[in-house]
Amino acid sequence: MNSEHIERIQASKWSSSEDLPLVIGLDLGGTQIRTAVLQGSKLLSRVGLLTGENPSPERVIPRMYDSIYQALQEAHVTLDEITGIGIGAPGPLNSRTGVVFAPPNLSGWINVPLLDIFVEKFQLPVYVENDANAAALGEFMFGAGQGSNEVVYITISTGIGGGVIADGRILEGISGTAAELGHMTIDWRGPRCNCGNIGCWESISSGTAIARRAHELIALGRGEGLLNFALAHQEPISGDDTPSDVSRAQRNEIHINARMVAQAAQAGVTEARDIINTAAEGIGVGLINVVHIFNPERIVLGGGVVQIGEPLLGPARRILQERAMKVPAQSAKIVMAELGSDVGLVGAGALTYYNH
Amino acid sequence: MNSEHIERIQASKWSSSEDLPLVIGLDLGGTQIRTAVLQGSKLLSRVGLLTGENPSPERVIPRMYDSIYQALQEAHVTLDEITGIGIGAPGPLNSRTGVVFAPPNLSGWINVPLLDIFVEKFQLPVYVENDANAAALGEFMFGAGQGSNEVVYITISTGIGGGVIADGRILEGISGTAAELGHMTIDWRGPRCNCGNIGCWESISSGTAIARRAHELIALGRGEGLLNFALAHQEPISGDDTPSDVSRAQRNEIHINARMVAQAAQAGVTEARDIINTAAEGIGVGLINVVHIFNPERIVLGGGVVQIGEPLLGPARRILQERAMKVPAQSAKIVMAELGSDVGLVGAGALTYYNH
Repeated sequence: MNSEHIERIQASKWSSSEDLPLVIGLDLGGTQIRTAVLQGSKLLSRVGLLTGENPSPERVIPRMYDSIYQALQEAHVTLDEITGIGIGAPGPLNSRTGVVFAPPNLSGWINVPLLDIFVEKFQLPVYVENDANAAALGEFMFGAGQGSNEVVYITISTGIGGGVIADGRILEGISGTAAELGHMTIDWRGPRCNCGNIGCWESISSGTAIARRAHELIALGRGEGLLNFALAHQEPISGDDTPSDVSRAQRNEIHINARMVAQAAQAGVTEARDIINTAAEGIGVGLINVVHIFNPERIVLGGGVVQIGEPLLGPARRILQERAMKVPAQSAKIVMAELGSDVGLVGAGALTYYNH
Repeated sequence: MNSEHIERIQASKWSSSEDLPLVIGLDLGGTQIRTAVLQGSKLLSRVGLLTGENPSPERVIPRMYDSIYQALQEAHVTLDEITGIGIGAPGPLNSRTGVVFAPPNLSGWINVPLLDIFVEKFQLPVYVENDANAAALGEFMFGAGQGSNEVVYITISTGIGGGVIADGRILEGISGTAAELGHMTIDWRGPRCNCGNIGCWESISSGTAIARRAHELIALGRGEGLLNFALAHQEPISGDDTPSDVSRAQRNEIHINARMVAQAAQAGVTEARDIINTAAEGIGVGLINVVHIFNPERIVLGGGVVQIGEPLLGPARRILQERAMKVPAQSAKIVMAELGSDVGLVGAGALTYYNH
């Protein structure tokens, strides 16, 4: 698809999505398969099936088929009316060949030729892209990235994912695994990341990292205030008194998540503020790298952790302005994602328009 | 230029550069203006003029004109035979508009519309690109990047510069300042970089960083072996005995550069080895980021510091293999730059073919 075509789709936005052909968007996650019939960013149906406890391809792929048939039925649309199927899946995967390598949260998936399997099944054009890239495409074509050809999408939730639109095209790399922005090292002497690397952005500023630091502090006996806040804001498992609550927390039985740390920080709990500030500083540092590396016009922030808002984004913006090079920092407008929880579906569907 | 065209040029390589039109390549540096008439990567002439002590645009631009006339004369070519002029200049600059913003090593240059000035003077197509991007293009079209459309070029010398070819095109960003890879933060609690940021790759693994750490160690009195090596390998300024040599070194009067630290490391000086190891680890960490962000097929390493060779590149490769994600790490072939000191000229000239 040439950039004029994309501009036309972008210009059409929600209102006149009616010009666009019908597509299927499928968002394959570790816990859920979400599927929709779409016209542009308009959802004509929406189906959610659980991935299941044993997410082997043999079990999951038939469920994906089912979800497509259900989405068609719910939208009162037949397969003949569909132009293409876009699938967003957890990386690493090769978007050119549509082979899913070995996603950490889809056990049993090893070099699955998802594209070929779906083409054979549905006899339609099929596009497979990693979920963060698909989301980036969704925001670029139909959300907060509209009107710019230089967009970096960053989603901060349990992990940090990224997708890059450079000169109007998805940055893919040679095997389609580019834009793993959450796995940039920003602290080379820092914590070990799930990916095996040290000091990744994700290991410092993700929701998981925020929660991990809270648990670490409590285990070290330096999270008194945070522990008290957590105990006051969640149901104790039994009628344990404080000492054994502390020992439960030390055994990680008190579940503290990023949202709770943010609430504690808001309520004035010092160690929670420190944790949020550290994550915020990490976000600022990651944004400096994004600005220096991509010189984007638009940085689109999505994901649950971003909902913490100013306590996180205020310091991040300040660090960016203080430390980054002037020209690229001033060119980069930071905006919130617009597609919300539908971003995966809209992005998956957008793959068909993009590749057309 | 479409990618088929680039492939044709790539395929032609040195031997059949004769099919290519004549161009002028001009490499504007802080100390020298280098200019050539080129046919592909073949230099028909080569002229070097000093930028001069006062490098204001009013003084430097006429020298650039002179260098072009001299290069033409030396190549026995007239301006009529020239297809275009490519200029590599220190960033930050906007390659789309050809405006040079305010390069640190070209004082007095503030928002200079270099492209317009040269178009008006020579009535030819003119292309302006930052020097690292031009070098990347040179290696991509005529050097170690040939045959791949996913190339990251990294030059490690006094600073660290980068240029990225993604899907066969230069990664520019919205104002043409993308790919400032030397200014990725890899150590967010690390040293202050010249650019104002903290813990940039350049502040850890450049030649300047290696030399800085040597001087720091000596100033702290922990660089005895290094100091003795340096004193044995350079002429003392006067007949001072050791104590005052130490104080001279502490006053930074003993000039130790990266090459000397590498030689000392080679000779078994422990603190020199530590310095080289730290820089090497930094290079490995930077390469992890390059691999995770761009998933390149080829990483082309150039610049003087890379000449240190295995003591630097061995540990860097090992860290990359140990810590980076498997798929992108295995896809990335690390190769040495091929164009040597002509890379700036060939890259500048290549801008004309690329943009044609």
